[in-house]
Amino acid sequence: MKEISSLIAFRPDVRVVDATLRDGGLVNDFYFTDEFVKALYLTNLRAGVDYMEFGYKGSREIFEESKFGKWKFCKDEDIRAIVGENATDLKIAVMADVGRCDYKTDIIDRADSPIDMIRVATYLNTIPASVDMIEDADRKGYEVSCNIMAISNIREGDLAVALDILGQTPVKVLYIVDSYGAMYPEQIARLADTYLNAAAKYGKKVGIHAHNNQQLAFANTIEAVGDGVDWLDATYASMGRGAGNCAMELLLGFLRNPKYNVYPAIRFIDSHMNRLKEEGVVWGYDLQYLMTGLLNQHPRSAIQFTKEKRKDYAEFYREVVAQD
Amino acid sequence: MKEISSLIAFRPDVRVVDATLRDGGLVNDFYFTDEFVKALYLTNLRAGVDYMEFGYKGSREIFEESKFGKWKFCKDEDIRAIVGENATDLKIAVMADVGRCDYKTDIIDRADSPIDMIRVATYLNTIPASVDMIEDADRKGYEVSCNIMAISNIREGDLAVALDILGQTPVKVLYIVDSYGAMYPEQIARLADTYLNAAAKYGKKVGIHAHNNQQLAFANTIEAVGDGVDWLDATYASMGRGAGNCAMELLLGFLRNPKYNVYPAIRFIDSHMNRLKEEGVVWGYDLQYLMTGLLNQHPRSAIQFTKEKRKDYAEFYREVVAQD
Repeated sequence: MKEISSLIAFRPDVRVVDATLRDGGLVNDFYFTDEFVKALYLTNLRAGVDYMEFGYKGSREIFEESKFGKWKFCKDEDIRAIVGENATDLKIAVMADVGRCDYKTDIIDRADSPIDMIRVATYLNTIPASVDMIEDADRKGYEVSCNIMAISNIREGDLAVALDILGQTPVKVLYIVDSYGAMYPEQIARLADTYLNAAAKYGKKVGIHAHNNQQLAFANTIEAVGDGVDWLDATYASMGRGAGNCAMELLLGFLRNPKYNVYPAIRFIDSHMNRLKEEGVVWGYDLQYLMTGLLNQHPRSAIQFTKEKRKDYAEFYREVVAQD
Repeated sequence: MKEISSLIAFRPDVRVVDATLRDGGLVNDFYFTDEFVKALYLTNLRAGVDYMEFGYKGSREIFEESKFGKWKFCKDEDIRAIVGENATDLKIAVMADVGRCDYKTDIIDRADSPIDMIRVATYLNTIPASVDMIEDADRKGYEVSCNIMAISNIREGDLAVALDILGQTPVKVLYIVDSYGAMYPEQIARLADTYLNAAAKYGKKVGIHAHNNQQLAFANTIEAVGDGVDWLDATYASMGRGAGNCAMELLLGFLRNPKYNVYPAIRFIDSHMNRLKEEGVVWGYDLQYLMTGLLNQHPRSAIQFTKEKRKDYAEFYREVVAQD
């Protein structure tokens, strides 16, 4: 059993990362109004959130600019239009996907950018490419994290090799990413143990990014923080791909560090997130995501089911079991 | 860390209790159609559920029969109209609330009843009255459980006394009931330890009944089962008072005993539970329940907020904090 003190006291090393624009952008193709983004920025400041992820540094070679909102690309000038010089304690992060980011040209020196952290996202088979991106971002002066996606499909032996490679890079944070929402808290505890051992060896921090397919995104996040994981991703009203993420309002309510406040989160959800839902943007736990999570499948078929406004859940179950 | 074997193997002592009619009945005043109840019964049979709770044995002195559906009272003939002689492995349970049940007259001998188990529900201050009900039900031949409600407001010293009193009765199962949805998995682990020690001393089993105010009903339930708790309450589509309960479909997906099947649950939700929602019956996780859970308050103000179809969440937060 964990020490009860961890529920009463707090660990000052914890960092809360707001991923609403980035993971939520996958739901609405990154079409957020500037008014929304400014209100989100102010909310993060008031709530005591440590990092705000604005979106992706997506390749304009691969993705047509006209087909997405601006946070798919996170140009420095667009960020600056929201945050100015960002003379605050809130740091700015963007995600750079291996194979989907022209980082050599699109990421400039940190000294000239409003961005503080590059979050490199990789699958296991692209770890070497992620190393190049980590080193590039580090040379340019950024803090760097590395998100190893789809962790529920990775064998322990391969994970150990990946952590060993990443440990030798200048990366600051190694992220557990349960892309499929397939993991139970007991499994998170084991993964955290593996990550934390590698992190201790190489002087890194560990983070978690959870999905809510089985209503466990928050539970897995607080399991991880109880195990010693410091970097916690969350999104307002759980907005994120498919079943969404760990809810910021749950996480801020849980954390005991007095610098975090839940009330600004509730106000923002009341005034902005619920309006998105009323406008027809759909995300969050539903049966189709439970099914892909349970079967440890990529949520793409469940997202398609949602997009098509299908309601034949039992038929969908037969389909995904057949694909398994 | 828990043994990984608990996630791969299974404990044959686990019992799944469907509380849909009973806790869900609190949402719609127990107005379920016979067709719904029959389909639920067949679903439980197919899904391998162990117990089906039909509702309350509510006092007709206290509650007007004309104001509720029949499952507020669970007359034997009404149950029999659904299950016949119930020549199945699925056992039938009803709840008897201390102070709201005329158990001496309304609960007849088990030999003449379709009911197998009486679930006595009590607050800490009515433990002596619950003992009388437990002994009455035992004398009449029933299995008996005792649900100690609002556990998040009970001090450890008082709980120890309560468990010691109940341990000396013929009760079979002692239930952890997180009525306010206020508990985190780490706290459930500690409570489970307290209950399991008392249970071992007196030869009892331990159960859990969780609420979803902080999206932790399922997480707390699987935390408990990992700790050695055997009796697990769940409801289809989480239907239950306020934020609802541990979702049956999540629990059946998690349990590894091959006697449990998730597909009948998905079919039932598809064909029946979603229809209830479309008809306007409202339950489940929402911000107002997060707030009362976080503040460890009874959900009544949040239920009222829901009934009034209010959407001013930030104002509600100010109200509940002021009450705190």
